[in-house]
Amino acid sequence: MTLERTETDMLGARDLPAEALFGIHTLRAAENFDVSGISLRDFPEFIQSLAMVKKATARTNRDLQLLAPDIANAIDRACDRLMTCEDLARHFPIDMMQGGAGTSTNMNVNEVVANLALLEMGKVPGDYAAVHPNDHVNLSQSTNDVYPTAIRLTVLRGCVAVLEAQERLRDAFGRKGEAFAEITKVGRTQLQDAVPISLGQEFDAFAETVDEDVIQLRKTMDLMREINLGGTAIGTGVNAPAGFCASACQHLSRISQLEVVPARNLVEATSDTGAFVSFSGMLKRIAVKLSKICNDLRLLSSGPRAGLGEIRLPPRQAGSSIMPGKVNPVIPEMMNQISFQIIGNDLTVTLAANAGQLQLNAMEPVIVLNILQSMRLLARGMDILRERCIDGIEADAERCRFLYDQSLVLAASLNPIVGYSKAALLAKAALASGTSLRHAAEADGSLSRAQLDQIFGVAEPS
Amino acid sequence: MTLERTETDMLGARDLPAEALFGIHTLRAAENFDVSGISLRDFPEFIQSLAMVKKATARTNRDLQLLAPDIANAIDRACDRLMTCEDLARHFPIDMMQGGAGTSTNMNVNEVVANLALLEMGKVPGDYAAVHPNDHVNLSQSTNDVYPTAIRLTVLRGCVAVLEAQERLRDAFGRKGEAFAEITKVGRTQLQDAVPISLGQEFDAFAETVDEDVIQLRKTMDLMREINLGGTAIGTGVNAPAGFCASACQHLSRISQLEVVPARNLVEATSDTGAFVSFSGMLKRIAVKLSKICNDLRLLSSGPRAGLGEIRLPPRQAGSSIMPGKVNPVIPEMMNQISFQIIGNDLTVTLAANAGQLQLNAMEPVIVLNILQSMRLLARGMDILRERCIDGIEADAERCRFLYDQSLVLAASLNPIVGYSKAALLAKAALASGTSLRHAAEADGSLSRAQLDQIFGVAEPS
Amino acid sequence: MTLERTETDMLGARDLPAEALFGIHTLRAAENFDVSGISLRDFPEFIQSLAMVKKATARTNRDLQLLAPDIANAIDRACDRLMTCEDLARHFPIDMMQGGAGTSTNMNVNEVVANLALLEMGKVPGDYAAVHPNDHVNLSQSTNDVYPTAIRLTVLRGCVAVLEAQERLRDAFGRKGEAFAEITKVGRTQLQDAVPISLGQEFDAFAETVDEDVIQLRKTMDLMREINLGGTAIGTGVNAPAGFCASACQHLSRISQLEVVPARNLVEATSDTGAFVSFSGMLKRIAVKLSKICNDLRLLSSGPRAGLGEIRLPPRQAGSSIMPGKVNPVIPEMMNQISFQIIGNDLTVTLAANAGQLQLNAMEPVIVLNILQSMRLLARGMDILRERCIDGIEADAERCRFLYDQSLVLAASLNPIVGYSKAALLAKAALASGTSLRHAAEADGSLSRAQLDQIFGVAEPS
Amino acid sequence: MTLERTETDMLGARDLPAEALFGIHTLRAAENFDVSGISLRDFPEFIQSLAMVKKATARTNRDLQLLAPDIANAIDRACDRLMTCEDLARHFPIDMMQGGAGTSTNMNVNEVVANLALLEMGKVPGDYAAVHPNDHVNLSQSTNDVYPTAIRLTVLRGCVAVLEAQERLRDAFGRKGEAFAEITKVGRTQLQDAVPISLGQEFDAFAETVDEDVIQLRKTMDLMREINLGGTAIGTGVNAPAGFCASACQHLSRISQLEVVPARNLVEATSDTGAFVSFSGMLKRIAVKLSKICNDLRLLSSGPRAGLGEIRLPPRQAGSSIMPGKVNPVIPEMMNQISFQIIGNDLTVTLAANAGQLQLNAMEPVIVLNILQSMRLLARGMDILRERCIDGIEADAERCRFLYDQSLVLAASLNPIVGYSKAALLAKAALASGTSLRHAAEADGSLSRAQLDQIFGVAEPS
Repeated sequence: MTLERTETDMLGARDLPAEALFGIHTLRAAENFDVSGISLRDFPEFIQSLAMVKKATARTNRDLQLLAPDIANAIDRACDRLMTCEDLARHFPIDMMQGGAGTSTNMNVNEVVANLALLEMGKVPGDYAAVHPNDHVNLSQSTNDVYPTAIRLTVLRGCVAVLEAQERLRDAFGRKGEAFAEITKVGRTQLQDAVPISLGQEFDAFAETVDEDVIQLRKTMDLMREINLGGTAIGTGVNAPAGFCASACQHLSRISQLEVVPARNLVEATSDTGAFVSFSGMLKRIAVKLSKICNDLRLLSSGPRAGLGEIRLPPRQAGSSIMPGKVNPVIPEMMNQISFQIIGNDLTVTLAANAGQLQLNAMEPVIVLNILQSMRLLARGMDILRERCIDGIEADAERCRFLYDQSLVLAASLNPIVGYSKAALLAKAALASGTSLRHAAEADGSLSRAQLDQIFGVAEPS
Repeated sequence: MTLERTETDMLGARDLPAEALFGIHTLRAAENFDVSGISLRDFPEFIQSLAMVKKATARTNRDLQLLAPDIANAIDRACDRLMTCEDLARHFPIDMMQGGAGTSTNMNVNEVVANLALLEMGKVPGDYAAVHPNDHVNLSQSTNDVYPTAIRLTVLRGCVAVLEAQERLRDAFGRKGEAFAEITKVGRTQLQDAVPISLGQEFDAFAETVDEDVIQLRKTMDLMREINLGGTAIGTGVNAPAGFCASACQHLSRISQLEVVPARNLVEATSDTGAFVSFSGMLKRIAVKLSKICNDLRLLSSGPRAGLGEIRLPPRQAGSSIMPGKVNPVIPEMMNQISFQIIGNDLTVTLAANAGQLQLNAMEPVIVLNILQSMRLLARGMDILRERCIDGIEADAERCRFLYDQSLVLAASLNPIVGYSKAALLAKAALASGTSLRHAAEADGSLSRAQLDQIFGVAEPS
Repeated sequence: MTLERTETDMLGARDLPAEALFGIHTLRAAENFDVSGISLRDFPEFIQSLAMVKKATARTNRDLQLLAPDIANAIDRACDRLMTCEDLARHFPIDMMQGGAGTSTNMNVNEVVANLALLEMGKVPGDYAAVHPNDHVNLSQSTNDVYPTAIRLTVLRGCVAVLEAQERLRDAFGRKGEAFAEITKVGRTQLQDAVPISLGQEFDAFAETVDEDVIQLRKTMDLMREINLGGTAIGTGVNAPAGFCASACQHLSRISQLEVVPARNLVEATSDTGAFVSFSGMLKRIAVKLSKICNDLRLLSSGPRAGLGEIRLPPRQAGSSIMPGKVNPVIPEMMNQISFQIIGNDLTVTLAANAGQLQLNAMEPVIVLNILQSMRLLARGMDILRERCIDGIEADAERCRFLYDQSLVLAASLNPIVGYSKAALLAKAALASGTSLRHAAEADGSLSRAQLDQIFGVAEPS
Repeated sequence: MTLERTETDMLGARDLPAEALFGIHTLRAAENFDVSGISLRDFPEFIQSLAMVKKATARTNRDLQLLAPDIANAIDRACDRLMTCEDLARHFPIDMMQGGAGTSTNMNVNEVVANLALLEMGKVPGDYAAVHPNDHVNLSQSTNDVYPTAIRLTVLRGCVAVLEAQERLRDAFGRKGEAFAEITKVGRTQLQDAVPISLGQEFDAFAETVDEDVIQLRKTMDLMREINLGGTAIGTGVNAPAGFCASACQHLSRISQLEVVPARNLVEATSDTGAFVSFSGMLKRIAVKLSKICNDLRLLSSGPRAGLGEIRLPPRQAGSSIMPGKVNPVIPEMMNQISFQIIGNDLTVTLAANAGQLQLNAMEPVIVLNILQSMRLLARGMDILRERCIDGIEADAERCRFLYDQSLVLAASLNPIVGYSKAALLAKAALASGTSLRHAAEADGSLSRAQLDQIFGVAEPS
């Protein structure tokens, strides 16, 4: 760091490192919100989305002849650089947990883009008379349309990773479903032996339940496509020309390769966070289902000698510092905890959404922070779950058979023959005497040999 | 109560009041779960849905020649009676907060329908040899397909009331939006004066945000249409013939006048509660939005002398036991609290959904209790909000104008002329000196008379 | 209903049934908030607490010579009647989910007490010149001190039931702990076999964990003892003489037989709901622990043939409409669901507490509704859990022994002799070869006969 | 990185960087749980606590003659180094969001301490025959007592920072309370003008409410003092001598300068997470209160021209990218969002606590992660709130006076003279006619001049 430059805002003047691509507004914000240790620079995908928005708006401004072509083009190239050069993330030092409804984030990107554009034009950072962060980069925009648009874009882009991880996980469950199709076992409801099922059906159900979430997540994603560019400060379009939103959406769709459309009512769209509530709720649903699956995996693999033991999870590490040989279901446990985190994050999102007031919701920064973190945890967590657990699961077919054979799960099959009440007494008798259901039925004499064979199979030994 | 009858189950014999249409299983369950004071009889719409399911399955069993026509028809007529006669609700004494995954509820409806069918056939309650609760009424079914199907049906039917209340509320906001269209006022972001808006735009945004929820609720409802009849105990279809689900869906759609379809994978459908998580999440979203609206109404009507005072809510009751003349925004406050309840209920639903194990989620009773209560609160609450508050809201146009005139909300309009930095200094100067923005701009001399008139209007007095 | 009487407030005149003990303010509120179906009359303990507060304040007003003795005494006797006569609850028709920060509740009790006092004095209801709801019954008070005081009193009184149920439950667990002290079994961590424990130790731990909650609940209760009578509208004591709070506390302590004390800062006490957040959080903690216990009970009793099966819960009802003979852990399942409800209710309380503004929290009605419901569910639920489940639990000592004998839970005992790493290899070898740990150790030859006997017992058959 | 060393566990052999102070168990865990990006090394205070526990147990083992003095002393010195040298944190690469109930964390510290001890003894890392991570460093311990003990110690130590920040914040509010004591203003309930208050009283109430949390946090902290060292795997004390816990507590108290005591029942203490539920609930309570305070600050400073405007927050940065001169309450907004995060984190803790099973709660890692993050956010957030907002708050006394003068807040003072009903009519009349309350009272003629002067003051102009 050699020379400094000085910038001024309505609060006064401040020195900046000469090579800093951010300006005075970023400096103040970085100081004001030094609280969580998690900064914009930790979310390069968000910075990229911001750059895409700035590129789309620059092009729109140029098309509408609001911005001189040379400035527009310099901004355009600056955004390209920001979209591709991860090293520039260090110029985004502001905490994600920021007050100001995202204004600081927008100011940060305005300043960095302006300075990058200045460099493109052969000028020096801070020479804002040539390219001004607000008057040029932010032209026809406000934080209140730029920031939520960039969030939505980031979420849309992040969904790809979640969806791909889901699909891979679904397929992994499906493969196990196929592999275990022939293994008959005890089905359980309320942790009590119920009726027969195959282990394959259990894993197919996991595949199915994940697939349903793939479908629902795709639908929920669509809520992110409605954006409010052109609404500016409060959706009334102050300082933006008519038609800005439609044009900006076209540019942004082209730049991001993602379809985005104008919101129906820009005033409503500016303050409403319903789409984030729905989206976070969808992440919560995914988490709840994964947690249920992991609970099942832990239950089915309980043992090794005094549990259910119907499946074996691949061992990943020693399970205890004192109990030698113990191996624990550490990967599902990790996923359970991720689920708890995501459900907690969803509450944070709900609380923030609930705090909107009048023409804006000032709490969007904590919304985006939590949604992005949850998406990362989900995508990464599902991949780990699949690679380090699901793919290596083995069935203990012998154990499944043993438990099945000694169980009473065929009692329901007696209903059509002897009726529910009688069947209940037979099951009770078998349980009390410690014998098999077939034995109890034989002793009772209500069923013929043929009926017994039909229900229990010919070869079953009493 | 005159004579008693005795019924027996696997735990022993119990006496029942002669006129009781329920049987021994209901009696035990009513005793076991006497905990919340909220019983099935408090939800007649749920009982009706259960009757519809029993009617549809009886018809399916008859079609498939599993049930003799006279028994099937008697059950059919019994279900009709249960669907129409509200007085029969008293035969459903079991607590909604029940263990057993809904088995007691299914047993209850089986018993009542069997006894009603017996009466139809000229027999006496308890003569189960003729019509048996399990062997006939419950034929080809299990609690685990009947109960969630009846829940889904109840939710679908209850949605109608919610949607209608939403639409009425949306229209009421829309009417106010129209009425207040010409009232220009200060728009506020982060509780700070921002840029101009009309009061009508604020109310139009309320209408829009409610309308978006109408659309989303309709979509979310569709998740309730997938049912798992025919899956019986764990989705494998034990004791149900192939094709049962498709046929039962057709009957049920016809009976309920609501389209229902078979779930893709009955094993998955039996244990999965994802649809309830999504649906409850949608109710939460509605609640969050209504809470935001009510917060705005309370803020805009704050005063009467030392608040914003831009609107007046219709007075509904004296507001204080000690402060004479005080009137409070009691209806929005009620709605805020309903929202908090619904958000809390959603957490309960999430926790219950998270507790599914293996082939079933035993916690469905608390899920249905909370969803039905939330739906009631929403539907009723929105009607009260509209009738007792929104419809009677008046604007204080003078106050709106006064605040607008003395504000600095036109500062953003200076940007295109003098640039953001200069405009900020002008706004700061106006604020510091206690003058109007126009005055500050005039004093500065940067703008021409024509520019000033264009921004501030010709007639504005300094 | 014979003749009607007419009452008037600032909004106009309304007719009331002649025998109604409530007045016009109650009438309006009952109409305004007809939303949840849950009314003040469903919480007679709350009405009693309100009567106690009115009695204490009447005595304080009399002592301070603000109220004529005859009026004060009539009010005093009226409160006695309200405290003892449950039939009077029907005069409290207002919904618990009310706007207005409890004003309607206070108005309701003011009116009923005034009319009861009038009857005491031989006058007719509505003759408020003699005894006025506001000027006499509410003298030196405001809703904003009366209402939270009555809530706190109700919670304190309701805690007795919760504590007693907790103590009974703790003792029930303790008795089982003693009965099962000699039954050695497999201890499990992360659902994997760990080291030995006795079944008695497991139940003793349940007793201990409940006992800790008894201690903590007692401490948390104390937060309810600080009351703000005398602060009136916003804690500044408008219309109440100095010293009112101290005197009223003394009266109220004597009347309620519960120690209450003045809050340190009445302004803060009027708007703060921190004590309710803490108290509700304590209920949540109790719920979380009970849920964990019930999960354990369901897990340990899983089976009957294909689960852990170490304990047997007493059968309470048939467990399935299709699976004859199935018995489910319905009582723990009920308690799990109660826990979910209480955790959800706690969120509602948190949200309401979070919504306080300036000098008051208007959302107290939904706070009290949720806390009182949670307390009822807890107290009743714990009694049902104990009576219908815990007291009847039996151990399957044979099953415990069987699982113990075939397990590897003594592996940790090898550490001191052969070290952790070697012990891990021995455990792994035993598992891989399907033999006992002793057998694997013998085969390895690292341990002497004496060491083997010391660890595994002399008589153990390989 | 030059040479590698090889370590072996029950799963096989792995190469480690020669200079790595961690071993094979850490390596596997770092690979298994690479999910959140937040590692042990990000919480050096937690590593320090783990080192304190290892030091205390080494001393206890030495005292009890279980560990040779040279090994014990080497471990002791190794722990000292770990407690003081922050650079060593890089040897703790495992993700905080880990499965395995903390085993990996304990393994990590065992390995690092063993290797540091080896270096102390002049040996090389990995020479575990001399000092073994499990057989020596972990002697008489298990993850299940070490890990929760270290968590509790970390929380206790972290509380100091929270408490100090609270006390500073309380004092800052107190200073403002004093400064603003003479500024009379409108008190507001339910956002409606109520009765007089001073601005100083409002800030005193903030000071008081924070002070109550100081008191309660101190009490709640005490729950963290009960530790379960000596219980080992499941609280039964396998491989730990009698008296280990008491002795270890003494050492640990001395080392940490914090009083810790043995839990009453080690079996219960091993699986119970109630203390974390309570502690997290306390953090939530603090968050709720701070959120309420920040809401008030934002409301009272709303404006600058069309809001309440009774106070001015110090400007910290430009508030908008489009609205020049706008300044927002960014610091309180940041604190609101922190509060939402903490409330969400509390739900995560609750969910994790709810997931305990049998002898352990495997979800403790996500509990400690969330509690430590919440504590950091709180401590740091409160300091920022104080430094960058509270200390610089100014009152707008003129505005307070203006709003006060035109309000009707003295209506309650009419009650003692004319009665509540009459006073209500006077207030209503003043409001309807747009005059002052005094004027309405004069016009009515019910009060004498002297009475009017007494209530409204002599000098008040009508």
